[in-house]
Amino acid sequence: MAVVVQKYGGTSVGTIEKIKAVAKKVIERKEQGNEMIVVVSAMGKTTDSLITMAKEISPNPDKRELDMLVSTGEQISIALLSMAFHEYGYNSISLTGFQAGIKTDGLHTKNRITDIDIKNVKKNLNAGRIVVVAGFQGINENGDITTLGRGGSDTTAVALAAKLKCACEIYTDVEGVYCVDPRVYPKAKKLHSISYEEMMEMASLGAGVMETRAVELGFKYNIPIYVAMTHGNKKGTVIKEYDDTMEGKVITGLTLNDDVLMITVNNVEYKSKNIARIFDKVAKHNINIDMISQTAPFEGYVNVSFTCSTDDNYSIDAAANELQTEIPGIEVSKESDITKLSVVGIGMMKQSGVAAKVFNIFSDNNIEFKQVTTSEISISYTINTSDKQKAVNALAEALDLRA
Amino acid sequence: MAVVVQKYGGTSVGTIEKIKAVAKKVIERKEQGNEMIVVVSAMGKTTDSLITMAKEISPNPDKRELDMLVSTGEQISIALLSMAFHEYGYNSISLTGFQAGIKTDGLHTKNRITDIDIKNVKKNLNAGRIVVVAGFQGINENGDITTLGRGGSDTTAVALAAKLKCACEIYTDVEGVYCVDPRVYPKAKKLHSISYEEMMEMASLGAGVMETRAVELGFKYNIPIYVAMTHGNKKGTVIKEYDDTMEGKVITGLTLNDDVLMITVNNVEYKSKNIARIFDKVAKHNINIDMISQTAPFEGYVNVSFTCSTDDNYSIDAAANELQTEIPGIEVSKESDITKLSVVGIGMMKQSGVAAKVFNIFSDNNIEFKQVTTSEISISYTINTSDKQKAVNALAEALDLRA
Repeated sequence: MAVVVQKYGGTSVGTIEKIKAVAKKVIERKEQGNEMIVVVSAMGKTTDSLITMAKEISPNPDKRELDMLVSTGEQISIALLSMAFHEYGYNSISLTGFQAGIKTDGLHTKNRITDIDIKNVKKNLNAGRIVVVAGFQGINENGDITTLGRGGSDTTAVALAAKLKCACEIYTDVEGVYCVDPRVYPKAKKLHSISYEEMMEMASLGAGVMETRAVELGFKYNIPIYVAMTHGNKKGTVIKEYDDTMEGKVITGLTLNDDVLMITVNNVEYKSKNIARIFDKVAKHNINIDMISQTAPFEGYVNVSFTCSTDDNYSIDAAANELQTEIPGIEVSKESDITKLSVVGIGMMKQSGVAAKVFNIFSDNNIEFKQVTTSEISISYTINTSDKQKAVNALAEALDLRA
Repeated sequence: MAVVVQKYGGTSVGTIEKIKAVAKKVIERKEQGNEMIVVVSAMGKTTDSLITMAKEISPNPDKRELDMLVSTGEQISIALLSMAFHEYGYNSISLTGFQAGIKTDGLHTKNRITDIDIKNVKKNLNAGRIVVVAGFQGINENGDITTLGRGGSDTTAVALAAKLKCACEIYTDVEGVYCVDPRVYPKAKKLHSISYEEMMEMASLGAGVMETRAVELGFKYNIPIYVAMTHGNKKGTVIKEYDDTMEGKVITGLTLNDDVLMITVNNVEYKSKNIARIFDKVAKHNINIDMISQTAPFEGYVNVSFTCSTDDNYSIDAAANELQTEIPGIEVSKESDITKLSVVGIGMMKQSGVAAKVFNIFSDNNIEFKQVTTSEISISYTINTSDKQKAVNALAEALDLRA
């Protein structure tokens, strides 16, 4: 019998009724002759309300204890889902992270799976049980309960599939992977398939369907990941190895990220020491920099721009104040209505001219861009958020991303 | 340094504010030079609401999964309490049942502790941490999460104290052990101390302060158990070995139980086979019988009465219907406004005449009793519930149970 790992996110198990619906969906697959492993997240907003309780105890709760607390969310949903299988007459067992042998290391609240001791899962599959595994959690060397950080349940599912060399299906509240976020561009094309590399790039650029880590793991072990909607029967998207059927397209998708703060430092005397000082200061304040650009020196002075997350707003102000004292004469300004727009496509590796094409489209539509960076399979631009919709519409038409 | 195990019940950790108050109380004891282990129950009504969810999935949820579900309640409270210690600047670690090495066997939802692998608790105490242990839960041979049934957190606390041969303190929402339930008799005396045997008898007769199993464990390992109120500083009650300071009193306490159904079978032809048939039938319906009485045979016929819990109401009706078909001529009647009143005292072992004294008090106050049973250290009576208050007042005065 084939083994299938399915993962259902928090929205999919958000109520008792939804848990029952998920149980029925799993049973359908089981009845087709598959051995089923089901990974679930915490119900709906459970994790958030647990974190709210923790914050009432301490503004900065101990991270080991936060993992202990938050991991109860998945434990509740696995128990309830397994009860539903029993109720429908199917043998089933729920397993917490430690019972499923999910070993992790790293820092509490953002651990990584190092290995899975798959014995217990296999034993229960062999006994004919539907095995329900708590997503997002594991156990470390000390026997502490750990959690995996963002997108952790997806990672649990892909890691289990990798260990068992079986199919992996991620069910969520979106229909699959779109060329462009359909909330911004409703006519966006849904992809039948996308390569791991493109999906990782899109995930890290903020496409939001799946976290980069889970896709990375699928890539590493070559496990195709099928992403589809929990309810209904619409076809989703397969994330898999790049192959010929995907060729012929230069651009696969376009991603958008509004969580951008752009900082510009003007009037910097052109010495490498000065530039280094700026970035040292930023690093000291634990600010993660994304894009960097620098003007050519003019009369011995340059302007430097960089972007970071809006989460770092306060840290940026602190860093800017210190810099203005330490490097007299510079001016620091901050813009927040900035969007990062990226075009992604593995085809770019073979075909040039994408940057030029985009520049032309921007120019034809009077869209000013502020910065450009490139990776092997993507090009990113920062633009004013006010130009976002116009840019998306023009690019989607021109780059064949419309359904 | 002395080790102290403290246990706080669900009401005591029912809100974030109460958790903080418990943390401060524990820290006070720690600052007096003690190593602290704190056992906690689930917050307030958490367990009930988890069970409600389970019942929405299934009227009779799988018991292993119910343990998996319900055990999250304590896991939430240990994490929050440990966070509070950290917030107040104390090193602390929370441990679930399995992390604390609490090994159990038996049926899911009513397991028993078989042993405690105390290594992890000791290691963390030695590291100077306040160790917070989830009450009510453990792990069985299969690695399944288990729960201990009623009063389980008290049992966890006493078992830990027994393993470490240290003091055990149970904090709750009552001030200690009273001679008589203060809700029925507000002038009741609070006991400074009570023997294990008397406390077990009172617990099994329904005194409600502590479950029998936890007291039994204290008795077995001779661990004095101090029971007191969580908030405030009023002196509580020590449950300990019977000693001379407790002597001189014949009656220690009086317990009441309204959960009584009295069944009377009239016109039973006096043959041992007939009596056996009645109790066989009752056993077949899984009805637990408490008190039994039988009238002397009169003209070849007897009447038999017995009591059971009101939980068995439906089963009794079924058993009665079957009996009336199988033994023609008998009449079965059922009374529900019945109270079981028991007087308890280890002194009764040495001094006779208690029964006579109680009979006289009943007679002086026109209280009719229906049945009497005796154990080594108690005598129990069934009376009409309408006579309960009068009986309690009279007995408390006469037997010196008034404060």
